[in-house]
Amino acid sequence: MASVDVPVALLGYGTVGAAVHRLLEEQGDEIERATGHRLRVVRALVRDPDKTRGFDAGSGVLTTEIGDILGDESIKLVAEVMGGVDPAGEHVLALLGSGRSVVTANKQLVARRGAELFATASTAGCQLRFEASVCAAIPVISVLRESLVSTNVHRVLGIVNGTTNFILTAMESGGTYGDVLAEAQRLGYAEADPTDDVAGFDAAAKIAILATVAFGTRVPIEWVHVEGIETIDEAHISAARALEMHVKLVARATLVDGQVDVRVGPAMVDAHHPLARVEGAFNAVMLQGDAIREITMEGPGAGGIETASAVVADMVSIVGTGGTGFLQNDPVWRALPQLPAGGFPAPFYLRLEVDDRAGVLARIAQELASQQVSVAKLVQQPGAGGAVLHVVTHEAPIGSVEAALAAIRALPESRGEASAMPVVSDRGVEELGWA
Amino acid sequence: MASVDVPVALLGYGTVGAAVHRLLEEQGDEIERATGHRLRVVRALVRDPDKTRGFDAGSGVLTTEIGDILGDESIKLVAEVMGGVDPAGEHVLALLGSGRSVVTANKQLVARRGAELFATASTAGCQLRFEASVCAAIPVISVLRESLVSTNVHRVLGIVNGTTNFILTAMESGGTYGDVLAEAQRLGYAEADPTDDVAGFDAAAKIAILATVAFGTRVPIEWVHVEGIETIDEAHISAARALEMHVKLVARATLVDGQVDVRVGPAMVDAHHPLARVEGAFNAVMLQGDAIREITMEGPGAGGIETASAVVADMVSIVGTGGTGFLQNDPVWRALPQLPAGGFPAPFYLRLEVDDRAGVLARIAQELASQQVSVAKLVQQPGAGGAVLHVVTHEAPIGSVEAALAAIRALPESRGEASAMPVVSDRGVEELGWA
Repeated sequence: MASVDVPVALLGYGTVGAAVHRLLEEQGDEIERATGHRLRVVRALVRDPDKTRGFDAGSGVLTTEIGDILGDESIKLVAEVMGGVDPAGEHVLALLGSGRSVVTANKQLVARRGAELFATASTAGCQLRFEASVCAAIPVISVLRESLVSTNVHRVLGIVNGTTNFILTAMESGGTYGDVLAEAQRLGYAEADPTDDVAGFDAAAKIAILATVAFGTRVPIEWVHVEGIETIDEAHISAARALEMHVKLVARATLVDGQVDVRVGPAMVDAHHPLARVEGAFNAVMLQGDAIREITMEGPGAGGIETASAVVADMVSIVGTGGTGFLQNDPVWRALPQLPAGGFPAPFYLRLEVDDRAGVLARIAQELASQQVSVAKLVQQPGAGGAVLHVVTHEAPIGSVEAALAAIRALPESRGEASAMPVVSDRGVEELGWA
Repeated sequence: MASVDVPVALLGYGTVGAAVHRLLEEQGDEIERATGHRLRVVRALVRDPDKTRGFDAGSGVLTTEIGDILGDESIKLVAEVMGGVDPAGEHVLALLGSGRSVVTANKQLVARRGAELFATASTAGCQLRFEASVCAAIPVISVLRESLVSTNVHRVLGIVNGTTNFILTAMESGGTYGDVLAEAQRLGYAEADPTDDVAGFDAAAKIAILATVAFGTRVPIEWVHVEGIETIDEAHISAARALEMHVKLVARATLVDGQVDVRVGPAMVDAHHPLARVEGAFNAVMLQGDAIREITMEGPGAGGIETASAVVADMVSIVGTGGTGFLQNDPVWRALPQLPAGGFPAPFYLRLEVDDRAGVLARIAQELASQQVSVAKLVQQPGAGGAVLHVVTHEAPIGSVEAALAAIRALPESRGEASAMPVVSDRGVEELGWA
């Protein structure tokens, strides 16, 4: 098979861009053997061409003008690794519109402007691929689209943010949220302003993309119910330990009777569940479907070279499938509605701080029962100057649980916290460990 | 995109074959949306056309004559789901030779006759795909070949046999090997003759295939050093517990200085390692490479519908990439030698039963030292009428460890067992938990 020369361009030449260039050079023989194509970086868009780079771009490659790429007819394939919604979005739109296939590592761009970008690619007959936008080198998008094409995936559960998983894992070894966050910042696992990670926004963009691909319906990022980990304290961690569970920031997408629920928030994960054991800054995604039961993929969810490896795999897929129409189109083929707020069903862990006096338990049980929330387990401990109740419910809609909590907070016996977290387990509530 | 009608044939119509037919029917719309092709089963080769089937084959589909498939020019794509090396191998060879692309779920066939089959496919310009031959629906072959194309994968570690993992997991809850095996047979997790699973032969075929794909070199099944779990007893399980490890049947392929080592055998897996947490009949494979650090995929490694889902994904990939030459060729592009026996390096756990008298420890330490096997941890316990020594070594070649064990067995103070298992851990030996 004669080798085909493929001039490619990069938008951005930071850590990821330089790593893409390095992989294309160092693995060029391997890629050529697999595909018959030699990918060669001829242009890279940067803001400052004089900055020192992780891998030498080569003479005449760096440019500050997008026109140098748009105007070069030999460039048919571009990787967007600059990040941000602007101007990356306008550049990608112009490239797709002119018939160039694009690979992007940009989750915000795919989550926020995916519909428009895919429509443009479809009209122009080129491809948009985005594996690197979710969990770096873990190939969850391609597995969902290609390997599981005959499986109705009805649930996606993931730990898709390494920063928060690092913090929660470290809190299990002792340490307050504040201390551990400071340590994560010192080690480079958390940004100086950690909001995007700890408030769940990063995970929200990823689960919106995963839900869109898994269910074949557009899931706007605005649909994602987002809760962060800022309020998690030692009491939650030790309650989880007593329950043989782990507190994790879980992103999940669920199909409920043809309606879509997407949410990010702290959850109690049963120690026997595959997601419970994901430690440190690693990510994992579990896909549940009719034909496969479940497949879980775990690995580093971030990192320059890991992200670059996913970008290169997408570029290789584009040169390998160009012109065949193979799975290159918009994953969206239907329009499913959003599940009404309150409809999301799960077993829940409740933590209730109450006065330690006769009749309290009965009143709480009554408030739960009046919302049809059924108690599977209940343990009362002294604490918070009164009593702390740890409750695990049977599966119930989150709306009913929240209504019951509101009623409990209004009781004269309520002393403080009355909070809920969904429980993630493959086992029935009755089998769950309980100290 | 107009739909293309694709008549396909099946070799075999047992549990997997019927499930492939069912998925192609039930997911036909989904597949057509993704690929523009409608796959339709027109022929299925069976021994007994009158047997009751899990999914109705339809009128005139079942045949006992391979000639009905070979002679039908409209059939360009065939899935082999009959199993066995003969006559499946001859049928597949004839089909590939006549230009038909083939998908196979047959690990023995791929492991034993892969070279010949790929050469035939290459000459005839058709494809041979084999995702379902390893770990059913876990898409490890396609991830290795497509998503990790730019990553030098240098190590594959897997739990690739569900029967043995079920048995070892159950032994952790108490029970002898014999009792647990009988229970596994009763539940259908183990065959009446369990040899293929418990002696490691099933895992050997799978790791030979994975090594071939991961390293791009032909790895004959005869290269695999195979040890089963028949000798694992409660003492190993409780020693593992004390070490915060789990006994697992680990299949592994390792590149050592450009030489290939493949082996299957019981190993002590650190509780913090992703493979430690794979429970029951599940499978998991960890891929370690330059650009990705590691990716672990976990899921059901067997089952009719799970296997069928992988077969269908391969069929879809063939219709999606036909004619582009994309990653359809033999994964083998180089010829690496086998690592000499004894060269495989790992930290090891040693269990030594000795007399409990002065000087024993010194003599054992001396035998280890004379083979340059360095001790990281040692615990002595009473047991076996004398003392039991539990030793964890630093990384050493298995040949040196075996030589030291042979010398120790020959000591007058040796009372019985002197055995070794490799330790699997991401952490350094010094960090490993030790009771």
